[in-house]
Amino acid sequence: MKKSILLLLCLISAVGGQLNAQTPEENLAKMGVILPAPSEPVANYVKYVRSGNLLFVSGHGPCGGEFKRGKVTQDLTLEEAYEAARLTGVCLVATIKSAVGDLGKVKRIVRLFGMVNAPEGFTDQPKVINGASDFLTAVFGEKGKHARAAVGMASLPSNIPVEIELVVEIED
Amino acid sequence: MKKSILLLLCLISAVGGQLNAQTPEENLAKMGVILPAPSEPVANYVKYVRSGNLLFVSGHGPCGGEFKRGKVTQDLTLEEAYEAARLTGVCLVATIKSAVGDLGKVKRIVRLFGMVNAPEGFTDQPKVINGASDFLTAVFGEKGKHARAAVGMASLPSNIPVEIELVVEIED
Amino acid sequence: MKKSILLLLCLISAVGGQLNAQTPEENLAKMGVILPAPSEPVANYVKYVRSGNLLFVSGHGPCGGEFKRGKVTQDLTLEEAYEAARLTGVCLVATIKSAVGDLGKVKRIVRLFGMVNAPEGFTDQPKVINGASDFLTAVFGEKGKHARAAVGMASLPSNIPVEIELVVEIED
Repeated sequence: MKKSILLLLCLISAVGGQLNAQTPEENLAKMGVILPAPSEPVANYVKYVRSGNLLFVSGHGPCGGEFKRGKVTQDLTLEEAYEAARLTGVCLVATIKSAVGDLGKVKRIVRLFGMVNAPEGFTDQPKVINGASDFLTAVFGEKGKHARAAVGMASLPSNIPVEIELVVEIED
Repeated sequence: MKKSILLLLCLISAVGGQLNAQTPEENLAKMGVILPAPSEPVANYVKYVRSGNLLFVSGHGPCGGEFKRGKVTQDLTLEEAYEAARLTGVCLVATIKSAVGDLGKVKRIVRLFGMVNAPEGFTDQPKVINGASDFLTAVFGEKGKHARAAVGMASLPSNIPVEIELVVEIED
Repeated sequence: MKKSILLLLCLISAVGGQLNAQTPEENLAKMGVILPAPSEPVANYVKYVRSGNLLFVSGHGPCGGEFKRGKVTQDLTLEEAYEAARLTGVCLVATIKSAVGDLGKVKRIVRLFGMVNAPEGFTDQPKVINGASDFLTAVFGEKGKHARAAVGMASLPSNIPVEIELVVEIED
């Protein structure tokens, strides 16, 4: 008798979990994010390489929205840089989707290397890169939480304010 | 006859090796290092993510001791920066231990990415990052020797003098 | 009848592919590149660590040829920096060969992290790092195309103009 109640509770909880669970695609839709079509590199490199279950994603800058170029605090505010990091997250998710098709195959965002175009003495790299970390967690939930470094670069290509590299674990 | 002597020598050597071998925890104790309790990140990231046998460890700064902030040669000496890199190594080992429990499970420190907060024209990044490399080798022996890059950053979070990211291989 | 013609065409195409295919060593010879003997690090780190099928290669600077030190645009031209990146590629391939013996065992260059010693405001990191990407693709063909980041550093060891870190997938 007790056993069957426990079993029932388990079933309810499992079904409930399923009902509440959102796919990454549903989360994107809920946020009103439309993934841009990933551009193709024009040089001898690619947007990502998969090796076993790991997807190594190239350094990405912001895309899919407007952003200011230059150095945080000098050319754009902390808030604008946070938004640029969010747009970099959008861009990274677009590339992951082009690699795996269904974002539900993402098992874990493993490593995020966040680079901020910042003047000497800048100390708020984490507040900038949070823009991408918050976005990835909104899309993938707990699976979106990653090992991270957020650091300050002397310069970045095309004077983008943020560049981010990822390692992602994919389901078999 | 000769075979049995060889066997005996092998046994003695094996037992001798075992007796001399120190666990990483014993090496830490011998050096008088007490691992600090790892802090929890307050944002949407984590201290480490394990994927298969690889542990990806977030960028760490120094902890578990006093250190100076700022740029090497401007705000702290090379010797002080070496010590800050050693304290970053202490911090990384504390995080690895929190991830795997027994440091004997570390099969290899695979990759160390060492970032030094340094002025333009600084050239001694390797001498600074040796503080962490020497520490990891003292703790893990040959297993502590890693592929490495030691480079100069324009700025680091909270103006820490050193930040280090790791990839570690864990036993099955 | 049609089937056998198709089979014949397949065979011809397969044999033709084989005949045209060059080994990485043949490609190096064709380019007149002689791999320098890799130097041994003098500190507590190593040139590479293999973990499973992944080879993590330490940050390398240029070798096997003359190059200028310093910051791109200030101390050397974009063309000279491209050549320094190419020489860094030579150096990396020498290390990969010392690790695996036969370069034919390289399944894929997975990740390239390209660091350029550059002044603030520099924006052409990709044009510099192309020196290494073009070289790796010339040696390994499609297998040489990698996920990539090309970024600007405040300073690099010994004032080298370029430093590059790799992850390489090796055949079982």
